[in-house]
Amino acid sequence: MTQTKTWTAALLVIGDEILSGRTQDRNIAQVATWLNDQGIRLAEVRVVPDVEDRIVEGLNALRAAWDYCFTTGGIGPTHDDITVDAVAKAFGVPVVVHPTARSILEDYYRGRPGGLTDARMRMARTPEGAELIANAASRAPGIRIGNVLILAGVPHIAAAMLEALSGTLEGGRPMRSLTIGARAPESDVADLLRQTEADHPGCAIGSYPFFKDGGYGSNFVIRSEDEALARQCADVLKERLRGQDFEPVEGGI
Amino acid sequence: MTQTKTWTAALLVIGDEILSGRTQDRNIAQVATWLNDQGIRLAEVRVVPDVEDRIVEGLNALRAAWDYCFTTGGIGPTHDDITVDAVAKAFGVPVVVHPTARSILEDYYRGRPGGLTDARMRMARTPEGAELIANAASRAPGIRIGNVLILAGVPHIAAAMLEALSGTLEGGRPMRSLTIGARAPESDVADLLRQTEADHPGCAIGSYPFFKDGGYGSNFVIRSEDEALARQCADVLKERLRGQDFEPVEGGI
Repeated sequence: MTQTKTWTAALLVIGDEILSGRTQDRNIAQVATWLNDQGIRLAEVRVVPDVEDRIVEGLNALRAAWDYCFTTGGIGPTHDDITVDAVAKAFGVPVVVHPTARSILEDYYRGRPGGLTDARMRMARTPEGAELIANAASRAPGIRIGNVLILAGVPHIAAAMLEALSGTLEGGRPMRSLTIGARAPESDVADLLRQTEADHPGCAIGSYPFFKDGGYGSNFVIRSEDEALARQCADVLKERLRGQDFEPVEGGI
Repeated sequence: MTQTKTWTAALLVIGDEILSGRTQDRNIAQVATWLNDQGIRLAEVRVVPDVEDRIVEGLNALRAAWDYCFTTGGIGPTHDDITVDAVAKAFGVPVVVHPTARSILEDYYRGRPGGLTDARMRMARTPEGAELIANAASRAPGIRIGNVLILAGVPHIAAAMLEALSGTLEGGRPMRSLTIGARAPESDVADLLRQTEADHPGCAIGSYPFFKDGGYGSNFVIRSEDEALARQCADVLKERLRGQDFEPVEGGI
């Protein structure tokens, strides 16, 4: 396995509705899964409220620490949508109306009731020097500035923006994962797992217990950038599980 | 409305499985909702991997910044469960076997296959000076040290620990929220919302658009520690929505 750079990203989830418990976040898992396919590892997530200073502080910490920083939330037309202003402040640039974003919104709202109101025009604002991220779901674009990628908070709109970004970010080798399940309480196989991980540098083994169909069991997830190594580690794990009379199930239970 | 201290908490979610996208987090919303009932506001969330230095760094930042810091994940019996060690390191204290935790586990595993193995005994380890949090779901306790509360990652087990903590933490007035729905695209009522929030200091209005039954609409959530004030703000909002020919729906759509 050649030593290659591990590309990393952070996610800043912006929104009072997540911190109040009103809305169940779905963007962490969605962004994480998409990043795996791009060969980029999600290294940290922070959730902050719709408060400018808190967004600026979180963004500046995360964009300095990791290769990319994604944000979700706060780019709609209402007063609590302040992400663009906060990102501009973090970069020390003014907020401008992006001409392409404006014409996308003009096209979209032409003939719709109300037309392109001042509130809707908020969605054409970007930090100066930013590029747009296409949004096939609802048109109002996402925004890229430096290593920061600004996505919508509504999960299916964020998904459309991720789709537009697919293959455009520099990344490394996608993380591979293999799952082996067994009707083994994880505390019965803890030593075996520790040893198997230690025997396979470059692989991490996660253990996820469950209770299902009246019995305990665990799924063991082997993760590595090297698919062959993950396979080898999984095979050793299966053999050792059999050695303790647990029948391994490829793909998990 | 008397000026009172606003009690705050952070949540540190610990687990590779969240950052890899394998597991959809459910603890953020669960802890947030529970905190509201205790009169404590969730002010920040961070998600970090199963890496000791990252847990220590996140914990030390959060426990210094907010009144309480909760953690979820990493307190099971396997090699990737390192939360107790990381918290002890953050506090600069050794890890010890807690006698009460040990006897809880001895009782629980007596007569069960394998008994109290070394791996299971890991769940009796706490930072020195810690107290236990009862766990009616699966017995192995949560842990409290200083302003840090260590919960399980499995949501129904975390729920049992929260249940045990209910009413035991000092907090303020519970946050009240009222929801008003309308078949109004949020961009049509953005000015009205901004004005209504400005007219009611102590209230925050969040706007959450939806597309449902073939039409657009929004739910507006008014939050305040003062129930009467939230009610007054909601009534003004309803009146103003009617003024723009949108029929408000109490409780949301």
